[in-house]
Amino acid sequence: MDLLKQRIIEEGTVIGNDVVKVDMFLNHQIDVDLLCEIGKEFRKIFATSDINKIVTIEASGIGIACVAAQYFSVPVVFAKKGANRNVGDNIYKADVYSFTKGITTTIGISKDYIGPDDRILIIDDFMANGKAVHGLINIINQAGATLEGIGIVIEKGFQPGGDSLRSLGYRVESLAVIKAIDDGKVIFG
Amino acid sequence: MDLLKQRIIEEGTVIGNDVVKVDMFLNHQIDVDLLCEIGKEFRKIFATSDINKIVTIEASGIGIACVAAQYFSVPVVFAKKGANRNVGDNIYKADVYSFTKGITTTIGISKDYIGPDDRILIIDDFMANGKAVHGLINIINQAGATLEGIGIVIEKGFQPGGDSLRSLGYRVESLAVIKAIDDGKVIFG
Repeated sequence: MDLLKQRIIEEGTVIGNDVVKVDMFLNHQIDVDLLCEIGKEFRKIFATSDINKIVTIEASGIGIACVAAQYFSVPVVFAKKGANRNVGDNIYKADVYSFTKGITTTIGISKDYIGPDDRILIIDDFMANGKAVHGLINIINQAGATLEGIGIVIEKGFQPGGDSLRSLGYRVESLAVIKAIDDGKVIFG
Repeated sequence: MDLLKQRIIEEGTVIGNDVVKVDMFLNHQIDVDLLCEIGKEFRKIFATSDINKIVTIEASGIGIACVAAQYFSVPVVFAKKGANRNVGDNIYKADVYSFTKGITTTIGISKDYIGPDDRILIIDDFMANGKAVHGLINIINQAGATLEGIGIVIEKGFQPGGDSLRSLGYRVESLAVIKAIDDGKVIFG
């Protein structure tokens, strides 16, 4: 998606050899016009998939998933992090290790909102090691739901998440794949 | 907003005398068609306000804010909870006590995304004691930005948040105000 790649090059901040900050338009401040274009692109890519629900994980996936869901005319369900008394015990859980934060978090989706009839598209902002998506797949499997595909806004192609999921047979579609970060410059795959 | 009140009555789950769970359409599973109607309603209510940015707090405010932002043609900035090495120290912070979780969380917005030129609409899903909104106002004041108004989807009118903010002179607009929960029934104000 050229518009997205252009924004990453023009506005993204490279830190070291493995981090590109895009929190000026994607995951802290959010350019909602760009989210609309991202949502339309996901709709185009998954046009032939029979999707009835979009699943994401809090926090930065939620805005992207909600705007994209308008083009699919389906609801969003987001996995919550940690415990919350309002959610209760009626919940599918999975542990997710975050390399960014260096901690393991338990994510959960209520059993009321995911089940065997669901045909799910996972949407998330970033894929690096793919731990968050693996956690969501774990939950989808517990629920007996069907995973139709995985839509990622930015994939760090030099980290193993995307390819490990593809090698397991999942359909992973990333709108921008960063192949390398070289001397402060982002190189797309 | 009648459509919203109808959904709360038909689908909301009352727990005890002070909790109404609406996580089947608002803050766990999200009905994005309803979010669009909510967004249009906020746009109508704040039509004469000169808003250039919507501010919310993770997690459940993000989807509502992003969908609403489409009708205002402005970006969203969401306050993050806890520390994150990708955000850095360049951040305005405030402490927020959550009665739901019984803990105090530090929320933060990068100094890069909020400043004296900003005219802000705060949007959030729920208002009870108003602690989250007070935290956002604290950050907005630190940044020297202007608060144009506060849009809440569901206000628990029997808890002090909304009225305490109104008594301070803030414009608080709630799409549904729950006056009381009586014998398992929701009564709107």
